[in-house]
Amino acid sequence: MGEEAVMSEFKHLVIVKFKEGVVVEDIIKGMEKLVSEIDVVKSFEWGQDVEGQEMLRQGFTHAFLMTFNKKEDYYTTFVTHPSHLEFSSTFSAAIDNIVLLDFPTLLVKPSPAPAPAPAPAPAPEPA
Amino acid sequence: MGEEAVMSEFKHLVIVKFKEGVVVEDIIKGMEKLVSEIDVVKSFEWGQDVEGQEMLRQGFTHAFLMTFNKKEDYYTTFVTHPSHLEFSSTFSAAIDNIVLLDFPTLLVKPSPAPAPAPAPAPAPEPA
Repeated sequence: MGEEAVMSEFKHLVIVKFKEGVVVEDIIKGMEKLVSEIDVVKSFEWGQDVEGQEMLRQGFTHAFLMTFNKKEDYYTTFVTHPSHLEFSSTFSAAIDNIVLLDFPTLLVKPSPAPAPAPAPAPAPEPA
Repeated sequence: MGEEAVMSEFKHLVIVKFKEGVVVEDIIKGMEKLVSEIDVVKSFEWGQDVEGQEMLRQGFTHAFLMTFNKKEDYYTTFVTHPSHLEFSSTFSAAIDNIVLLDFPTLLVKPSPAPAPAPAPAPAPEPA
């Protein structure tokens, strides 16, 4: 995949502080089910900060990051998808604080390719 | 790259609201220079939310996401790097609000390979 394709991605970032007593595993299972049901979600990754500085986290503990090929996939297809609407109400009930950022990604330092294929040798010019 | 390699990545996520009057382009240039100088930063991408819902953004506008191969690259090499220490003071002076999350990534739905092989048909249950 060329760099141009990567440059045009659109991200949906959610950082969350869950309410006390919420079974976070269940919420995450619901989110995994959600992204598996909606094809326009190109990739989904998440993490929990367990070692960072509490002061700089401002109480937030989890980050969820979805990637779409283009913003229309997010705003048109994902946001209005019945599975998303259903999950949103579950999710909203579980959170104590949330920040949501949606943005086109600028990839400044792309990951190095794990095993870049050698460039094909140019065909020799006929003598 | 196998999925296991992706699973072991470590992310440094920063979301920011800049102070009024800050020339954000200059800050971002500084950050680009920073990540180009520190080899353990495996990839760096950022974005600005210009269309999201203001209420859900809580004033935050920019997200910066760095990826490392492992958390030691972040906590040991990156955090203590002289270029990082120097940039941190510039950055701190420019921000009005910040949330910082550092976490190992769990990649639930990996990006599809550009030319995925068809999934093998599941073996039928014996009758």
